[in-house]
Amino acid sequence: MVVELISVGTELLLGNIVNTNTQFLAEQCALLGLSMYHQVTVGDNRERLSEAVRTALGRSDVVILTGGLGPTEDDLTKEVCAEVMGFALKEDSHTKKRIEEYLKNSVFKVIPDNNWKQAMVPEGAIVLDNDNGTAPGLILEKNQKAAVLLPGPPGELYPLFKKQVFPYLKKRQPEILRSQMVKICGVGESQVEDKLLDLIDKQTNPTIATYAKTGEVHLRVTARARSEEEAKKLVKPVVKEIKSRFGDNVYSVREEETLEMAVVKLLQKHELTVTTAESCTGGLLAGRLVNVPGASEVFREGFITYSNKAKRKYLDVNKSTLKKYGAVSSETAREMAIGGVFAADCDVCVAVTGIAGPDGGTEEKPVGLVYIATYMKEKVTVKKFQFKGNRAKVREQAVVRALDLLRRSILEQYR
Amino acid sequence: MVVELISVGTELLLGNIVNTNTQFLAEQCALLGLSMYHQVTVGDNRERLSEAVRTALGRSDVVILTGGLGPTEDDLTKEVCAEVMGFALKEDSHTKKRIEEYLKNSVFKVIPDNNWKQAMVPEGAIVLDNDNGTAPGLILEKNQKAAVLLPGPPGELYPLFKKQVFPYLKKRQPEILRSQMVKICGVGESQVEDKLLDLIDKQTNPTIATYAKTGEVHLRVTARARSEEEAKKLVKPVVKEIKSRFGDNVYSVREEETLEMAVVKLLQKHELTVTTAESCTGGLLAGRLVNVPGASEVFREGFITYSNKAKRKYLDVNKSTLKKYGAVSSETAREMAIGGVFAADCDVCVAVTGIAGPDGGTEEKPVGLVYIATYMKEKVTVKKFQFKGNRAKVREQAVVRALDLLRRSILEQYR
Repeated sequence: MVVELISVGTELLLGNIVNTNTQFLAEQCALLGLSMYHQVTVGDNRERLSEAVRTALGRSDVVILTGGLGPTEDDLTKEVCAEVMGFALKEDSHTKKRIEEYLKNSVFKVIPDNNWKQAMVPEGAIVLDNDNGTAPGLILEKNQKAAVLLPGPPGELYPLFKKQVFPYLKKRQPEILRSQMVKICGVGESQVEDKLLDLIDKQTNPTIATYAKTGEVHLRVTARARSEEEAKKLVKPVVKEIKSRFGDNVYSVREEETLEMAVVKLLQKHELTVTTAESCTGGLLAGRLVNVPGASEVFREGFITYSNKAKRKYLDVNKSTLKKYGAVSSETAREMAIGGVFAADCDVCVAVTGIAGPDGGTEEKPVGLVYIATYMKEKVTVKKFQFKGNRAKVREQAVVRALDLLRRSILEQYR
Repeated sequence: MVVELISVGTELLLGNIVNTNTQFLAEQCALLGLSMYHQVTVGDNRERLSEAVRTALGRSDVVILTGGLGPTEDDLTKEVCAEVMGFALKEDSHTKKRIEEYLKNSVFKVIPDNNWKQAMVPEGAIVLDNDNGTAPGLILEKNQKAAVLLPGPPGELYPLFKKQVFPYLKKRQPEILRSQMVKICGVGESQVEDKLLDLIDKQTNPTIATYAKTGEVHLRVTARARSEEEAKKLVKPVVKEIKSRFGDNVYSVREEETLEMAVVKLLQKHELTVTTAESCTGGLLAGRLVNVPGASEVFREGFITYSNKAKRKYLDVNKSTLKKYGAVSSETAREMAIGGVFAADCDVCVAVTGIAGPDGGTEEKPVGLVYIATYMKEKVTVKKFQFKGNRAKVREQAVVRALDLLRRSILEQYR
């Protein structure tokens, strides 16, 4: 079964807002095992919307439209779909009553005349009551195809979809789809693909899709089958094979687990506390750790030591080290990590010092040069990186690599 | 001139990521005064991508494609566009050299074979050097139409577009369009629109477009004219009127100036040094300040005091204050700000303490409750906020409001 999304709204074409509805709907459809090949955005224009609906109904089984169900003259989605699919519009007394009640309870005491437009419903359509607004959702079925019309505001769309559209689509979908993520850090996208070329080449079911993130590569292994069990059986050996090929580079096989979550989990598992000593990342590393709910169990304090003076004051970095090797050096990173553990009285410290640019680079120490160090159980590990990109990109990569070095240092200790 | 966007990537169809590129590109095109009627997303599929490109070239003058320029077999955008538009692929020695250099300097010492695929370029295409990745941007021109191929990662796309595609499109666009931003912080979107209703209602030239960002509202005033001078004359009085209506809420009228840049500029202007004392934001606030190149002039060190003990140790918050009022309280925020100034020996401190959730909320102190304080020249300012949304959203809003309070506190002092 193929689903297509049509977002309706001139504000999307003007770039006034980010289209988050599409991501939500796409994820929900993937979860249902539905195939999606097209997502389309058009403005509040009768002709172009008609064409988009006609094209979508021609190539897809279900078309989900969002937006354009409001009370104004601009709002055309219902009218256009009814016309294209051959439905007549008729006032729906149930919907009229709901609109009346909704607006009576709202801040707007007077019901504007144009709101009654929203009580007009294609004759024979399934009406989906909207608890959070005046526009009901609508399902129009014809010739085995369906158009699902939903309001644009996320606060109306999400609950309407989850409560009423999700079960409707599930009933229409006979096939089962199951996917699992393998998340890799420390290997480039093309290197990952190189290592999996044979698997990717022969893939049919399950399939392997790669997603490049900053400093990470995510692999999604997806199988289709007639039962949950069968799909699981198809996915499992492929995930196992990938894991064996990438070893410690795999930090998680769970969809919702981020790198910082994996790190916090590892710290919790070994009952370790961590601190951060940051120069060029200036707090972003700690900020990522604190993304994880419950991070307070393993993280209590962090140091942002942007100046040399601060590095000495809080982390006890030697004046002579800074003078001899400079703030961006293996030696300084090392002393920052050691100093952090003692200053914060914790088990591990991860330290970052580098040149994020655009200024401050030299031939010997160019922009993008970053040293990352960890210290735990009397063992120091220092890595040198040369990142590419602008200031934001260098810092973002440094954060990912710092989290990853922290993860690897812990794995190393408890092997 | 009509522009159409095609996003390429199965990860978009699966809902793995939100398509923020489209919003960025749509906004940029609106800025250029270009018309946009369609935004389309297709997966990494040769047939469907071909069709999308053909359809787009049939109905639009310029087609901007993002994604699918990577080194893997999945990546088809270049190949498909070249085929549809009748270009032959040829190795580009300049691009090959750039890829070689880029990868040599990267953390991945080995250059995988498939990366050379990215050196293949449609013969006669304009090559746009990519400073942040291995895939160059490409412009293919034929029969008055153009396809602009850009890499998907925002860190590569944005600078490439701004530096090279924007001027290219500007040259193709005969009409002169001039716009100016007015960036507002501390007022909600609907409040902003309410205050500008009369201006928005009668707008024809210039127009006013609103863009809601986290904690901010940006207004773009745009005029069309036959000369730069004429356009400027149309924009100026409207910007002036908006500024007079919003006063201190306006933090910048410059397109590229972020809130943190405005804050750092203000600190520099008054020769002030700042420190940060963060609990729930856990480093994100300092991280934002350090986004600004040259932040070291005003920012030397910051405190991440996630635990109560750390708040006492580094910021000298009273044990009794924590006990009596709790870590999330006006009193604690106040003491954190004062303590920060003394500990870091600087002029200003901005402190944040709050409940980011999902746990830790009570009836009295619900999730989203955040106190932000500043201390400078013996004056404390504390503000209480109740933010909506998940953990990430609460922290993100807290960072914006902390930067804004810092900005307002400085303005206050030097009024």
